[in-house]
Amino acid sequence: MESRYRAMFINSLSGYKSVNLIGTKNDANESNLAVFSSVVHLGASPALVGFVMRPDTTERHTLANIKNEHCYTINMVDSTFWQAAHQCSASYQRDESEFEQTGLTEELLSHFQAPFVKESRLKYAVKLKEIVPITHNDTLFVIGEITDIYCDESVIQADGYIDIEKLDTVCVSGLDSYHQTDRLARLKYAKPHHPIERLP
Amino acid sequence: MESRYRAMFINSLSGYKSVNLIGTKNDANESNLAVFSSVVHLGASPALVGFVMRPDTTERHTLANIKNEHCYTINMVDSTFWQAAHQCSASYQRDESEFEQTGLTEELLSHFQAPFVKESRLKYAVKLKEIVPITHNDTLFVIGEITDIYCDESVIQADGYIDIEKLDTVCVSGLDSYHQTDRLARLKYAKPHHPIERLP
Repeated sequence: MESRYRAMFINSLSGYKSVNLIGTKNDANESNLAVFSSVVHLGASPALVGFVMRPDTTERHTLANIKNEHCYTINMVDSTFWQAAHQCSASYQRDESEFEQTGLTEELLSHFQAPFVKESRLKYAVKLKEIVPITHNDTLFVIGEITDIYCDESVIQADGYIDIEKLDTVCVSGLDSYHQTDRLARLKYAKPHHPIERLP
Repeated sequence: MESRYRAMFINSLSGYKSVNLIGTKNDANESNLAVFSSVVHLGASPALVGFVMRPDTTERHTLANIKNEHCYTINMVDSTFWQAAHQCSASYQRDESEFEQTGLTEELLSHFQAPFVKESRLKYAVKLKEIVPITHNDTLFVIGEITDIYCDESVIQADGYIDIEKLDTVCVSGLDSYHQTDRLARLKYAKPHHPIERLP
């Protein structure tokens, strides 16, 4: 397979992916914003989140900033700014802020050093815990602990589930296909030898 | 936060996740099928895929089987069998096959040892490369190389993108909310100082 075709094809295999903007600052206090589709839940207690980073691509500003400053923000992307989020994947220079370039609004919250995206309705502050090298292809698995969460309370359900569909959250497939969602249902905790049931 | 509430809440933070069934066999040739929402693309060349595994939960059969047999299948879940897929998360005994218990059909392809899900329209064979321990919470990051891909050719576009929406692929948010999708658009490769464009 030709390399671009292959990248497109293999990137489609894992299924739908989250779309998140990761906000950082460098040692000159310049802001950076990068879009990632590999943010993955690692555990609830402690609240850990991971994402995959390619060390030699356009995301290198994010990596350098996280290594230096040990903190970052993760901002969920919704249907009101998904195109600006995609634009953050362009190879801007180190001194060009993706906030300025894409029209997204930088927001500082609770003295946390890294910038948030004001437009995002679900976002959190993360402290770096560990960067695990994946030796097989020189990617990195970046692990952090969630310290502060900002979310519209009206979409948090009684059992703790956050209705991210009400936030118009988008997902991505492959490298560049963005999608909205329609809920099929929530399902009850599965038990052996009991038929599956929908949550009311 | 109470622990179940916290699990529900923190699991919602990363956004939409893929839904995949992982098929394995144990050394007694008994089949196992488990649902995972953490499958993540790691690289196209070599074609690497990772997923997060909790070592001490209902997924332990999958982990034991992968450690013993070094191979597994990943099967994308669509809207025709998402409820059966969720039922695979129930804590069945080691000698109970989730295929039999949920009505999904076991399929062996090209002499690959691990079983596929016949109902899945996009699935692949994976050889274990490495199990990376995440020391902060005792989870494991399981990395494998994709060796064979089975996909309906009609949904593969000219540039290599697989239209997983045409396969009725579902995604999940939190622990138990399943969703179908509606495409917003595919976007062109982003370049600095050029307005974002949709693919035709």
